[in-house]
Amino acid sequence: MKLENIDLRAYPGSEKTYMKGERFPELRVGMRQVNLTPTVKIDADGNKTMRQNAPVTVYDTSGVYTDPNVEIDINRGLPRMRSQWLDKRDDLERLPSITSEYGRMREADASLDAIRFPQRHAPLRGKEGRGITQMALARAGVITPEMEYVAIRENMNAEALGIKTHITPEFVRDEIARGRAVLPANINHPEAEPMIIGRNFLVKLNTNIGNSALSSGIEEEVKKAVWSCYWGGDTLMDLSTGDNIHETREWIVRNCPVPVGTVPVYQALEKVNGRVEDLTWEIYRDTLIEQCEQGVDYFTIHAGALRAHADMVGERLTGIVSRGGSIMTRWAVIHGEENFLYTRFDEICEILARYDVAVSLGDGLRPGSIHDANDRSQFLELDVLGELTEIAWRHDVQVIIEGPGHVPMNKIRENMDRQLDKCHEAPFYTLGPLTTDIAPGYDHITSAIGAAQIAWMGTAMICYVTPKEHLSLPGLEDVRTGVVTYKIAAHAADLAKGHPGAQVRDDAMSLARFEFRWKDQFNLSLDPERAREYYVDSHRNDGDDRFCTMCGPNFCAMRISAAMADECVK
Amino acid sequence: MKLENIDLRAYPGSEKTYMKGERFPELRVGMRQVNLTPTVKIDADGNKTMRQNAPVTVYDTSGVYTDPNVEIDINRGLPRMRSQWLDKRDDLERLPSITSEYGRMREADASLDAIRFPQRHAPLRGKEGRGITQMALARAGVITPEMEYVAIRENMNAEALGIKTHITPEFVRDEIARGRAVLPANINHPEAEPMIIGRNFLVKLNTNIGNSALSSGIEEEVKKAVWSCYWGGDTLMDLSTGDNIHETREWIVRNCPVPVGTVPVYQALEKVNGRVEDLTWEIYRDTLIEQCEQGVDYFTIHAGALRAHADMVGERLTGIVSRGGSIMTRWAVIHGEENFLYTRFDEICEILARYDVAVSLGDGLRPGSIHDANDRSQFLELDVLGELTEIAWRHDVQVIIEGPGHVPMNKIRENMDRQLDKCHEAPFYTLGPLTTDIAPGYDHITSAIGAAQIAWMGTAMICYVTPKEHLSLPGLEDVRTGVVTYKIAAHAADLAKGHPGAQVRDDAMSLARFEFRWKDQFNLSLDPERAREYYVDSHRNDGDDRFCTMCGPNFCAMRISAAMADECVK
Repeated sequence: MKLENIDLRAYPGSEKTYMKGERFPELRVGMRQVNLTPTVKIDADGNKTMRQNAPVTVYDTSGVYTDPNVEIDINRGLPRMRSQWLDKRDDLERLPSITSEYGRMREADASLDAIRFPQRHAPLRGKEGRGITQMALARAGVITPEMEYVAIRENMNAEALGIKTHITPEFVRDEIARGRAVLPANINHPEAEPMIIGRNFLVKLNTNIGNSALSSGIEEEVKKAVWSCYWGGDTLMDLSTGDNIHETREWIVRNCPVPVGTVPVYQALEKVNGRVEDLTWEIYRDTLIEQCEQGVDYFTIHAGALRAHADMVGERLTGIVSRGGSIMTRWAVIHGEENFLYTRFDEICEILARYDVAVSLGDGLRPGSIHDANDRSQFLELDVLGELTEIAWRHDVQVIIEGPGHVPMNKIRENMDRQLDKCHEAPFYTLGPLTTDIAPGYDHITSAIGAAQIAWMGTAMICYVTPKEHLSLPGLEDVRTGVVTYKIAAHAADLAKGHPGAQVRDDAMSLARFEFRWKDQFNLSLDPERAREYYVDSHRNDGDDRFCTMCGPNFCAMRISAAMADECVK
Repeated sequence: MKLENIDLRAYPGSEKTYMKGERFPELRVGMRQVNLTPTVKIDADGNKTMRQNAPVTVYDTSGVYTDPNVEIDINRGLPRMRSQWLDKRDDLERLPSITSEYGRMREADASLDAIRFPQRHAPLRGKEGRGITQMALARAGVITPEMEYVAIRENMNAEALGIKTHITPEFVRDEIARGRAVLPANINHPEAEPMIIGRNFLVKLNTNIGNSALSSGIEEEVKKAVWSCYWGGDTLMDLSTGDNIHETREWIVRNCPVPVGTVPVYQALEKVNGRVEDLTWEIYRDTLIEQCEQGVDYFTIHAGALRAHADMVGERLTGIVSRGGSIMTRWAVIHGEENFLYTRFDEICEILARYDVAVSLGDGLRPGSIHDANDRSQFLELDVLGELTEIAWRHDVQVIIEGPGHVPMNKIRENMDRQLDKCHEAPFYTLGPLTTDIAPGYDHITSAIGAAQIAWMGTAMICYVTPKEHLSLPGLEDVRTGVVTYKIAAHAADLAKGHPGAQVRDDAMSLARFEFRWKDQFNLSLDPERAREYYVDSHRNDGDDRFCTMCGPNFCAMRISAAMADECVK
């Protein structure tokens, strides 16, 4: 199989720039520079004056897809940027081949050649007894290239603004060591650009893609993955179920410039043909190794959904709405045993620590309706996630805590406060929350309202919701809408938190608006294409663009305001 | 001219119901009842059990457009429901004809026959010296039919739930008397159904329509007006500029089931051909009377934008972004005089009091960018609005205070707190606020994030923003998106405030979701059509609808959750 190449539109008016490292001069941190047009003024005597407008640098998640100097070949995968750093390390070993049984079986199956990713890479693994995770290294006082990379990345615009920023490589290290931030970077995913998740950094957003049994092929999923990064997704979860999960994931990981997460129990369940009762620890364990060796950067693991919680589900209006949570709780009920993800959690962490895969502790009991928000089972599970956090940290495994779901605004704060308290400030990663249940078709909006607030309060990463939530799988346009909506929520939170540099883009946009520099407005916006389309739709051709059709020329407040400023000067 | 009739789709699965008054038995308060399908369960032995699900009543702003028993004729206007109550009053007089000079001139101009609304109604006016406004009556201890109407309207679902509600006619009266709520009800707009704006009631949303010089005819504007009510708009502002404002407004007011607001200075400016310097008090005054006699229910009046504020505009990144504010400030600068809306405010109130038109004190200096939020000029103007509130109340004129614009989340609270303090708890009515500047094309979302929060904090009415904000005039689809988005924000706030009865709809939706009653989910949603479209798009025809394509059958958490519940029972 050969996939059609992906040719993303360049961001209009922008160029890819790279910033170098200081500690690691070989670092090249990709950013997007939006170039602006000059401001031209003509006074009453016809004299023209011109002011240059400084370019604005924006955080860029698109990787080299938007670098015209890099040739993209989906069938070869992205350049393996981090390999140069990893190869220098003495705490890693290159395995002769993959070690997962299932992975080997798939590898040996010639019938899969047709859909297999064409390249093979022998996996890396941490040497026995060495602490190889970013957390282990941070605790040992080491600053890794990945840490300097994210420090540079988070500081965009700081230099131009003369802002003295606190995001130094040392700060990054200390936050990771403390468990307050996570730098997901599987040593087998060298294609991903390092990024950081923590409440003292820019708010991040996760996108979900993945086929279900009913739809979507490999090509479409790879397209969605790249597309979601293009619009601003910081991490990507591949939630595929159905056939060929292994091969689909390989295509995605090799072509994805951001960290990839999965929910391994989905694949484990497929391996037993969807029969929950047939799930075993052995199958799950092998699935973990399989995915660690492919390069998945973080796993959602529903280790906090305990057997005891099943009894409380009856109190709820909508039961369990997390897929992983419902699977594991049902498994526990059927077998009359405790959830094996909980009982085997130490062993899980031992595996993850060898590949530097982060654990995202799943909220199997997140509320699926306003009615169920902040109930007893939800918060009991959160307590368990706090215990598990301590266990993972003992193994130097980085931890993220998953949260919300459906929560009315007045109950959001309690979620954040409890999470910080019970989970020792491990980064919170929430779905929305949706602030009402009554708007299917618009749940990107019901949830962006909640996401912006919880992110402001300290949630480090928000998981996007598309307009198709509750109704069907998102297509490309839904992914775009979901990502842009969540970029809005994340950025609104960055502004509210006073992150240094966040307001630069707003100010540049507003000045462009006040000066009727329409092109600059489009280019500075989160979705330049859409803005231009809405404007052009109704634009007139009389050469005067110092207003728009919304108010017309006589009622343009900015035009009147500018005229008044001129009059005041006289 | 004859306009094409408007035939709105009936809300699916719903019927129009009416509740009667107690104090005024002739009251018929229109509501929408969503009928639900029964829950059918088949146990392991094949026995079928059925549970009826009680219908859910929802607040209905569509008037008789969705009553199949009422024949709609756009060319005759809506039934004049309130006339029966107004005719009984002894404090009103029917004028032989309109008294505005401009209105008479238009009436006498035969060339306008082609675009004129076909019906004429002689206007009502309060008798000299009588306090005829809802506020005057409330202060005198009177409970009007309008007050009982809104009490019934606000109590939807209370009876069915056995909720003891505080929304009695007496409570409505007391809130109006106190100035904490506004019941906009021009005696010349008997077609409108009474509604109330105040923070102890359901959060309301306003929609804006209106042509600019560059687009949009009468037929399209009337369509947009009715359409916005269909989707849930509680009030409607006609912001038309350009030609034939007078005639356009007549068509809108006669066919609009919700209160209508305007910004009279827009029309006054058109009367002097857009030349700000030529505006006079006399022209403005006649415009007020013209619109009072047509039936406009509230006027935005930028009486707080003072000459002194003009000097502070230079501190801003984006100057003045309120059209009315920029016009009046510029007028004051040009003439070297104080804004006549401020100096003539007593006279303005005298006029408004004769027709029971509410004043919505415009925030001429609302911030147009994140940079300018909560600045000195904004808050100085708010202080002035507080003074003006006291003056209006002395005339028994109902007052609304306009606010926000662009405000980051961390600065929203200060807006609400100051407004309550400085403006003596008069209802706050805010545009958004937009919580970031960088997403033109998505400003319905940037602003819904802010609107939900400020409404939760106590804003009584939020003014919608459409996706076309900053770019062009909204079309019908933009109006729909804007209204639904703001219904979400308003409802999220109602939930967070714990308004009795608000959660009924969420609970019914969530139960329908848990029980896979898809039709009920669509019918209970804010936009049934969209929800159904997204679902059907990807639905399979195998007869099993106990899941959707989002997760597929094996990974549907609700299905697994339900199966587990069955297992636990056994």
